[in-house]
Amino acid sequence: MQGVLAPVLTPFDADLSVDPARFVRLCRSLLEEGLSGLAPFGTTSEGTSLAVEERERLLDALLEGGVPAGKLIPGTGCAALPETVRLCRKAARAGCAGVLMLPPFYYKGVGEEGLFRSFARAIDGAGEAKLRVYLYHIPQISQVPIPLRVIERLLAAYPGVVVGIKDSSGDAANAKALLRSFPGFEVFVGSERLLTAHLRDGGSGCITAIANLNARAIARAYREPGEERQKEIDAVRSLFEGFPVIPALKEAMALRSGDPAWRIVRPPLVELSPPERSRLQQALK
Amino acid sequence: MQGVLAPVLTPFDADLSVDPARFVRLCRSLLEEGLSGLAPFGTTSEGTSLAVEERERLLDALLEGGVPAGKLIPGTGCAALPETVRLCRKAARAGCAGVLMLPPFYYKGVGEEGLFRSFARAIDGAGEAKLRVYLYHIPQISQVPIPLRVIERLLAAYPGVVVGIKDSSGDAANAKALLRSFPGFEVFVGSERLLTAHLRDGGSGCITAIANLNARAIARAYREPGEERQKEIDAVRSLFEGFPVIPALKEAMALRSGDPAWRIVRPPLVELSPPERSRLQQALK
Repeated sequence: MQGVLAPVLTPFDADLSVDPARFVRLCRSLLEEGLSGLAPFGTTSEGTSLAVEERERLLDALLEGGVPAGKLIPGTGCAALPETVRLCRKAARAGCAGVLMLPPFYYKGVGEEGLFRSFARAIDGAGEAKLRVYLYHIPQISQVPIPLRVIERLLAAYPGVVVGIKDSSGDAANAKALLRSFPGFEVFVGSERLLTAHLRDGGSGCITAIANLNARAIARAYREPGEERQKEIDAVRSLFEGFPVIPALKEAMALRSGDPAWRIVRPPLVELSPPERSRLQQALK
Repeated sequence: MQGVLAPVLTPFDADLSVDPARFVRLCRSLLEEGLSGLAPFGTTSEGTSLAVEERERLLDALLEGGVPAGKLIPGTGCAALPETVRLCRKAARAGCAGVLMLPPFYYKGVGEEGLFRSFARAIDGAGEAKLRVYLYHIPQISQVPIPLRVIERLLAAYPGVVVGIKDSSGDAANAKALLRSFPGFEVFVGSERLLTAHLRDGGSGCITAIANLNARAIARAYREPGEERQKEIDAVRSLFEGFPVIPALKEAMALRSGDPAWRIVRPPLVELSPPERSRLQQALK
């Protein structure tokens, strides 16, 4: 996998149930706009706010809706290992390009051995030769960082299975250290802000929330990297600064699609307040 | 509910599957030793490391095994709202005394409105008149504190439904503030270290990990409160200091029961190292 992926927003109905039809439409349109792939059930997707069955149902809907499994890296990391195993197995059997795996995120201060075992047991438990794992490093939210030493052990134990990482730390030095330490490891940054520099360093691309709204331009900045394209996508990204990112992206999606249901988020998230909404609408004009 | 409850340790087999028979035996014996009730699927229980179906299966095993539902306050709070709803509904229909509800614990920096909605939607979603909710405040692990203002709103919106809290913050000032702010609210502290003082302040009791191993003495310290009893239970508690608490309790349970399978924890936790094990065995002698 190479290029730009979106952690796809998850559409809800007024009763907070998931809406597979709207989800499939968004996923198809993002690929048509030039994204290399999709990472459904990530942080931006409110993935951890979805029941295991809901993730399964949405993945089925994508496949039935004609989205190629080879374009998908669904989020599978749960607090409970058996649920991670179940989602990994399903994704691998469906032929997904990979899975994006959070570490278990309830207990904090977990040691290297515990982290290593968490990933190892998930891989062993899934028992699928076709499984490809992208680690998901997002310490500011999960509060469970994935240190280099754990990755080193995983690469030694699962060569060809643990193939990459999404580094959402926002720390360019960590992305560089990953590239330097593990040649061939597919490193995606979590923000298009770092895209051009990361590609120059040998990175694989980015998996970024803003790609839900600005897919075409970010995909182009990947294909034709350079300062000018980078400036263009930075300018769009900056419009969302100062807002809670997921509600703001959903507000923007509601505006673009004309469908106010896109505003709906699941608790603990809250949609934009009316003043925030006006401010964002102004900014996006 | 009043008195001392244990967040019951969850027994696993060598393949990390849950062991309902051993779980029922432990729960029954803890009640026989004088505990007022049990809080299965708490933090000490590795509750968030269990799949929803596993929690359901273990709860069924308890009820079939003769543990009275009226003694149970199972943990039901998940990162995903539909899973919390499902577990709350099950517990209420089974006649459980209540549920112990973590807030959704993936997203951090959640505001009061988002927290309020998380609990409100779980209660509304369960739709069970018999549901009784104990909030679970354990900010050092969940990283999602439950502020007084949210509790105030919940008590106004759900009188007689939101009935209490487990305050595991270890902050005696917070427990006092809860008692002062909400007369009649059942406040349990998360450590027997605070038991005597908390009862003097009008608290309802404690839900404490160490009750898995020292049930009789802690139950007695509740029935006959005073400095002497407090010193006795503090002395036992201090034996576990300096160890990772869940693996240490499981080690102690393995020692006491003669069943080494009690040592098994699920990742991301790790059992005690051999040196830690020796040190704990020495201490417990």
